[in-house]
Amino acid sequence: MSDTPSHHTLRERLYEIIFEAETAAGKAFDLVLLLAIVLSIGAVLLDSVPEINARYASLLNTVEWTFTLLFTLEYALRLYSVRNPIAYAVSFYGVVDFLAILPTYLSLILTGGQSLIVIRALRLLRAFRILKLVQFVSEAAHLRRALMASSRKILVFLGAVLTLVLIIGAMMYLIEGGTHGFDSIPQAVYWAIVTLTTVGYGDVVPHTSVGKLLASLVMVLGYGIIAVPTGIVTVELANASRISVNTRACPSCGRGGHDLDGNFCKYCGGEL
Amino acid sequence: MSDTPSHHTLRERLYEIIFEAETAAGKAFDLVLLLAIVLSIGAVLLDSVPEINARYASLLNTVEWTFTLLFTLEYALRLYSVRNPIAYAVSFYGVVDFLAILPTYLSLILTGGQSLIVIRALRLLRAFRILKLVQFVSEAAHLRRALMASSRKILVFLGAVLTLVLIIGAMMYLIEGGTHGFDSIPQAVYWAIVTLTTVGYGDVVPHTSVGKLLASLVMVLGYGIIAVPTGIVTVELANASRISVNTRACPSCGRGGHDLDGNFCKYCGGEL
Amino acid sequence: MSDTPSHHTLRERLYEIIFEAETAAGKAFDLVLLLAIVLSIGAVLLDSVPEINARYASLLNTVEWTFTLLFTLEYALRLYSVRNPIAYAVSFYGVVDFLAILPTYLSLILTGGQSLIVIRALRLLRAFRILKLVQFVSEAAHLRRALMASSRKILVFLGAVLTLVLIIGAMMYLIEGGTHGFDSIPQAVYWAIVTLTTVGYGDVVPHTSVGKLLASLVMVLGYGIIAVPTGIVTVELANASRISVNTRACPSCGRGGHDLDGNFCKYCGGEL
Amino acid sequence: MSDTPSHHTLRERLYEIIFEAETAAGKAFDLVLLLAIVLSIGAVLLDSVPEINARYASLLNTVEWTFTLLFTLEYALRLYSVRNPIAYAVSFYGVVDFLAILPTYLSLILTGGQSLIVIRALRLLRAFRILKLVQFVSEAAHLRRALMASSRKILVFLGAVLTLVLIIGAMMYLIEGGTHGFDSIPQAVYWAIVTLTTVGYGDVVPHTSVGKLLASLVMVLGYGIIAVPTGIVTVELANASRISVNTRACPSCGRGGHDLDGNFCKYCGGEL
Repeated sequence: MSDTPSHHTLRERLYEIIFEAETAAGKAFDLVLLLAIVLSIGAVLLDSVPEINARYASLLNTVEWTFTLLFTLEYALRLYSVRNPIAYAVSFYGVVDFLAILPTYLSLILTGGQSLIVIRALRLLRAFRILKLVQFVSEAAHLRRALMASSRKILVFLGAVLTLVLIIGAMMYLIEGGTHGFDSIPQAVYWAIVTLTTVGYGDVVPHTSVGKLLASLVMVLGYGIIAVPTGIVTVELANASRISVNTRACPSCGRGGHDLDGNFCKYCGGEL
Repeated sequence: MSDTPSHHTLRERLYEIIFEAETAAGKAFDLVLLLAIVLSIGAVLLDSVPEINARYASLLNTVEWTFTLLFTLEYALRLYSVRNPIAYAVSFYGVVDFLAILPTYLSLILTGGQSLIVIRALRLLRAFRILKLVQFVSEAAHLRRALMASSRKILVFLGAVLTLVLIIGAMMYLIEGGTHGFDSIPQAVYWAIVTLTTVGYGDVVPHTSVGKLLASLVMVLGYGIIAVPTGIVTVELANASRISVNTRACPSCGRGGHDLDGNFCKYCGGEL
Repeated sequence: MSDTPSHHTLRERLYEIIFEAETAAGKAFDLVLLLAIVLSIGAVLLDSVPEINARYASLLNTVEWTFTLLFTLEYALRLYSVRNPIAYAVSFYGVVDFLAILPTYLSLILTGGQSLIVIRALRLLRAFRILKLVQFVSEAAHLRRALMASSRKILVFLGAVLTLVLIIGAMMYLIEGGTHGFDSIPQAVYWAIVTLTTVGYGDVVPHTSVGKLLASLVMVLGYGIIAVPTGIVTVELANASRISVNTRACPSCGRGGHDLDGNFCKYCGGEL
Repeated sequence: MSDTPSHHTLRERLYEIIFEAETAAGKAFDLVLLLAIVLSIGAVLLDSVPEINARYASLLNTVEWTFTLLFTLEYALRLYSVRNPIAYAVSFYGVVDFLAILPTYLSLILTGGQSLIVIRALRLLRAFRILKLVQFVSEAAHLRRALMASSRKILVFLGAVLTLVLIIGAMMYLIEGGTHGFDSIPQAVYWAIVTLTTVGYGDVVPHTSVGKLLASLVMVLGYGIIAVPTGIVTVELANASRISVNTRACPSCGRGGHDLDGNFCKYCGGEL
């Protein structure tokens, strides 16, 4: 707020730039970081394509090290500028920041044919860099609140779906007699999930008439019960949106959240 | 409520533990039972996988008998502690409890190659143990009420969908001329359901131009009419949610529809 | 209403039984007719299965003629008992009733190998008998009203979807270069519909990287725009349901349809 | 408005006919144009089907030139009659009008085997003629407003989905070990999109048990999160519908929210 930088130490100014987004420098830093994250994830994606990896191996290696050093610098500056470095290091974003730079350094230590698969696995950790984008999003709060409010109902719904696919899977395993991809109950449950969610790969399909009849019932069922989570979320979003349209505060007690058609404050009874 | 266990007989205490969840012992029993159900279902699933069944046959057999004896003990205790054992035995959960232990005992009687398929079928009955989980769920009541309220409209909708797939199936059977999987009207109706519900296995697809045109229309139709059950359930959930927060009427003006956190009537300002 | 059957002629009594459902006889007639329609459609379905047709040809032929004679009798009685037979014959249900009996009689005239396909086509007309079930459904009116109210918005939405799949299809045809099932723009448009509606048969899939990228965008688009018809129908159903909860009529002017939170009649201004 | 055509110059009358739809001539022009657009797009579609192209090449060529000359005339008249021709030429519809006639003329210049593919690509530009239909649709405004209002929330949702498919794709690439179509992370992300949006082509499916388990989770997730955009759009449509019926405020008490068919304020009884 105060524009007297001489009062700030270097650490305080760094903190303002890196962790906050109120100043011009802070906004610029966030924008550059955002771009670097998107580009580095692009590089991870391209690196996994065999043809591109074979032709541009050295270029991708350079890009990888450039971004790793950049993110290492960022991680070091964060640790330096933050008031409580340990609290940051063990926080969610602290761990994500650390995991984003770890794999490239580990690829130096772990060399040799056997450890190649381990490195490749660790490299993928960098894809989690994208989670750092979450901090740029303030719009998500409204959605998250509505989803939180309906989470218990959605869990009950998912529990019911799980019960359903287990019973359907067991029945289908029996009907199709352990053949045509229905080799075990878990396989049949996999089919039931593929069908009930209307994904319908077609890698496993019923071959008997009774199986097709049951499958038809499952499809219509899945078609119908998709309405349930939609209904839950819509009602919660409507409630959240209804709350957000009340902008009048009570002149007596100063509390908000009144309905649009109310004449009197519902908390203190004063006229609105 | 009263903490004088000496007044309770063993039966009454068992009833409290097994059938109720108010006491600490009752809650612990429910938790152990919940775990046992989940583990026993896991064993049924693994038992059906040929590779696992071949390697761990004796282990899975032991697990199966352990859980069966455990559930038999539970069933016996329930019969003993309940006031009216016959009413329990013929109730929904009583039958589920009995069916959950029956197959393992039957596997002793029914031996020999021919009856193997029968045993395997009966074993699947144990998957219904999962239905016992329902009693742990109190949250489901709200959803069930909303679905009940909209059940008549959903039945009408399903009837319309059934009529639609029959007519579409008959047309498609004629268009594709009884080939490419459209071998009979029931087969063509199966295709119509797979398409209308947007599952889309791809095991049966139209091969003629006219068939593809009709299929396109069916897909767009299916895409559109999925809105209907969603709309029905959403409106019912919204009504259920509105009703569940509104039970107090204002003593001054007699009007309802107040928020749960309101102390004063929003219409006349009288204290609630 | 009046219980003096002697005042009624035979025609009037038949009309009451066949066309109305207020009397016990009328209800019984509707129930028998309902059953006959369901059974006759089941026979049409089974008749189209080659294996069943081969084994039970004579039985199915008998069933077909029995139902045809039954429906012929019903059609004749309807024509006899109704006040204006021509108006009935050209009405929707009159045409459906006639088309339901026509094919079996035509199969007598059209004999010989060449006309077999024509007969088979006409036989399918009998599947339209199911449309006669519609008259048993009074519950559908609420749904139909909500769909009517949102029909203009849904048509605009379908027009937008059609424009979208045409442009996407044209782009995809160019990208995939007229191969892999994208042989022509209509074929590519068929693929676009299969993808946008999330049916996803998998009979035609993109093979190039650019094609897969465009396909991914189309899928996410389809996932998003399915929200539009759902939203439209839900809002209309909510409006229809809101209207139906107003049961108070104005004591001054007798008109209903007031909002639940209104104190005064919105038509005449009288206090409610 | 004034019916004295002698006061209008030819340019002004052309402008009225071509750009406006108030006069009978203007409506007729729009209708003919609408028909011409639909027919010309039909010709483009048919032209791309190899069999039809081979048999009716000369007929389709004639149709193509007829429509091109027609649209050229329309374009010239629009440029002539509009007050600011340059503003029109660079406007959205001006560019669409120009692109709709360009390809046929270019096919005269670009001849020879090599440029055939270029012409074919340009011909597809004419498919954009369909966008001209948009101007006939006034109903779309309501939908567009609701989608605009919810666009920020939908963008956040799409961002979350993108993050999700990237992480799921990376995990799946590791689990399936770069085989069975999961050859690279972009390929695995493509699979994740196909699965999460419930399209489910089936061209790439998991083959390992762990992969199938993850796929099942992704499907259930996709089934659940489809509720989010639906909820967002429904709430916005409900708000838009509520706003669009409420514009009059009561002159007595100043309160709004009255129904369109109300003559008196429902709160104070004053005449509206």
